[in-house]
Amino acid sequence: MTLYGIENLPYGVFSRPNEAPRLGVRLGSSVVDLSTLGGLLNQHSLNPLMAAGRAQWTAAREAIVAFVAAAPERIPLSEVTLHLPFEVADYTDFYSSEHHALNVSAILRPDAPGLPEHWRHLPIGYHGRSSTVVVSGTPIRRPSGQLGPGVFGPSRRLDIEAEVGFVVGVPGRRLGTADFEEHVFGLTLVNDWSARDIQAWEYRPLGPFLAKSFATSVSPWVVPLAALTAVDHLPQDPPPLDYLQPAGPAYDLRLSVEWNDTRVSRPPFASMYWTAAQQLAHLTSNGASVRTGDLFASGTVSGPRRDQVGSFLELTLSGAEPVKLSDGSTRGFLEDGDKVTITGTTIGAAGVEIGLGEVIGTILP
Amino acid sequence: MTLYGIENLPYGVFSRPNEAPRLGVRLGSSVVDLSTLGGLLNQHSLNPLMAAGRAQWTAAREAIVAFVAAAPERIPLSEVTLHLPFEVADYTDFYSSEHHALNVSAILRPDAPGLPEHWRHLPIGYHGRSSTVVVSGTPIRRPSGQLGPGVFGPSRRLDIEAEVGFVVGVPGRRLGTADFEEHVFGLTLVNDWSARDIQAWEYRPLGPFLAKSFATSVSPWVVPLAALTAVDHLPQDPPPLDYLQPAGPAYDLRLSVEWNDTRVSRPPFASMYWTAAQQLAHLTSNGASVRTGDLFASGTVSGPRRDQVGSFLELTLSGAEPVKLSDGSTRGFLEDGDKVTITGTTIGAAGVEIGLGEVIGTILP
Repeated sequence: MTLYGIENLPYGVFSRPNEAPRLGVRLGSSVVDLSTLGGLLNQHSLNPLMAAGRAQWTAAREAIVAFVAAAPERIPLSEVTLHLPFEVADYTDFYSSEHHALNVSAILRPDAPGLPEHWRHLPIGYHGRSSTVVVSGTPIRRPSGQLGPGVFGPSRRLDIEAEVGFVVGVPGRRLGTADFEEHVFGLTLVNDWSARDIQAWEYRPLGPFLAKSFATSVSPWVVPLAALTAVDHLPQDPPPLDYLQPAGPAYDLRLSVEWNDTRVSRPPFASMYWTAAQQLAHLTSNGASVRTGDLFASGTVSGPRRDQVGSFLELTLSGAEPVKLSDGSTRGFLEDGDKVTITGTTIGAAGVEIGLGEVIGTILP
Repeated sequence: MTLYGIENLPYGVFSRPNEAPRLGVRLGSSVVDLSTLGGLLNQHSLNPLMAAGRAQWTAAREAIVAFVAAAPERIPLSEVTLHLPFEVADYTDFYSSEHHALNVSAILRPDAPGLPEHWRHLPIGYHGRSSTVVVSGTPIRRPSGQLGPGVFGPSRRLDIEAEVGFVVGVPGRRLGTADFEEHVFGLTLVNDWSARDIQAWEYRPLGPFLAKSFATSVSPWVVPLAALTAVDHLPQDPPPLDYLQPAGPAYDLRLSVEWNDTRVSRPPFASMYWTAAQQLAHLTSNGASVRTGDLFASGTVSGPRRDQVGSFLELTLSGAEPVKLSDGSTRGFLEDGDKVTITGTTIGAAGVEIGLGEVIGTILP
């Protein structure tokens, strides 16, 4: 059984040696070239298709399903290079896992743990750097930065954040939660690399900056919303304000985090407090516009248990309780040469399990 | 005497009715069309010229000076539409006025005023929203947002931030302060509109988000660094770390803020603690890349005196001491219909006073 059958067909951009990038869909461990379908599918990036709107997304998917059913050439993934599948406009990152927010608070502010007063009133977020969003497989150079007064050097507390990113297709502003499926094309897995020592020294009062801006890795595959099944969202208390109602679809995505090929966590996306539809409504509620290619990420996905957390800060209690890997070594934060792989699955719209792609990064000194 | 003589020649993008946008330079109250000069000057935006590097910037300026000296057609500014002069890549905003940081701290955190511990160690900054950077003259719709628990509505504490923005031409990463003039093309005046009530409720712990993302206005004119005179920067104590040394050029820019045609403040850019070269070095010190069209703004420019501050929060002590305008009315924060004009001048490279353009915005309900 494959996680990448005809029920899934996530989009990517690939190239063969000495050829220009083109659109494809993943089928098993191969990619199917879409360029012969022409028009919005004969492009160098997903942006034109994403901008075209939901009716075109549906038509494209129907055409692709028919095309794939006719047994087209499959190009093994081992023979292609995968590229960033879309041009990133603005990149925004949220903080919508209650477990993550509580864990971080307890670790970093043990004298005053708990959620910020406004956490259950709005999905807290901030803007990140678009220029450093990179595709899975891009090596991640350990960032240097100020680690405290008078200290500049390589981060010693390099971490991950396992997240789910949503990609905007159709531009808009002042969007309601009900507009979500008209404007959002699909989702992609995200690793929001974070240097905790840089972050601790810099983040007051304007938020994280260089602790995050050196790199954000995304999966080469964008899973269209049409491949997914919506599930009920968690109860929200207090009831959100009108502009955040109804909450919109939640998704039962099951993530997996591997640290040097040892699975260390299974973050459950269904445990997120705020939905992506609420994040989008909040993001545009002040009149701000979103554009084709906007990426907004969920924030670290952490469930209630230690083996469900989406950051190593939480997994190892900031290094105080190192994790043991299958080769017998232990880790608090990332060491040079370490590899992190985030994958995910869900029960898709066709009722079968589908894969959500993968985001992989290896740390260079 | 004009502030826009042949010593200045800031770049802009203009169009006449039913014509495509093209590059021009400002001369007095006219614009001179550069398209007949061809190549990098026959473009729809400044980005190709900015990307070409300093040698091309110098060659272009020499060609333009010769062209303007030959008395070309002048198109009155009243006959053209001015556009955003460059395509914004990432937008970053700093917080580099010590007076501003101290004033804000005293107003918002009166129980614990003062600079954050790291303020004198690094130029604090954050990422803003690129999609809502708009050209001067674009009306600013009052943003709505959460103003507190259970309260959503139009901001009642709408403010300005008078800033100077620097525009990146040549991409790079891990730039030293000495690289500044090879990578930065020029500067533009910025009004970083801010909703203080939205900001106060949302900003912990990830920084300002919807309080700023609804709009950022920039001047239609980009003044090339070649038109400016560098001056000595302020003393910095403690001495900055090596990667922030030497401080690089400071600029003696004299800003002016008018509220409905009453001048209310003259913020002095020479009073900024961190230089733009240090901001750029800091921004890229972790390995983050900057691209052509990156805009990084100084943060609110405030001098030591009340009539030198760059925000109305400071000018009116958060509304507690309203300012009186020339029509007899008083203001704490912005009212619907209010117009704000930020201008600036400096003694340029040729030893004469030059204008820095203007950024104007009128508040819509």
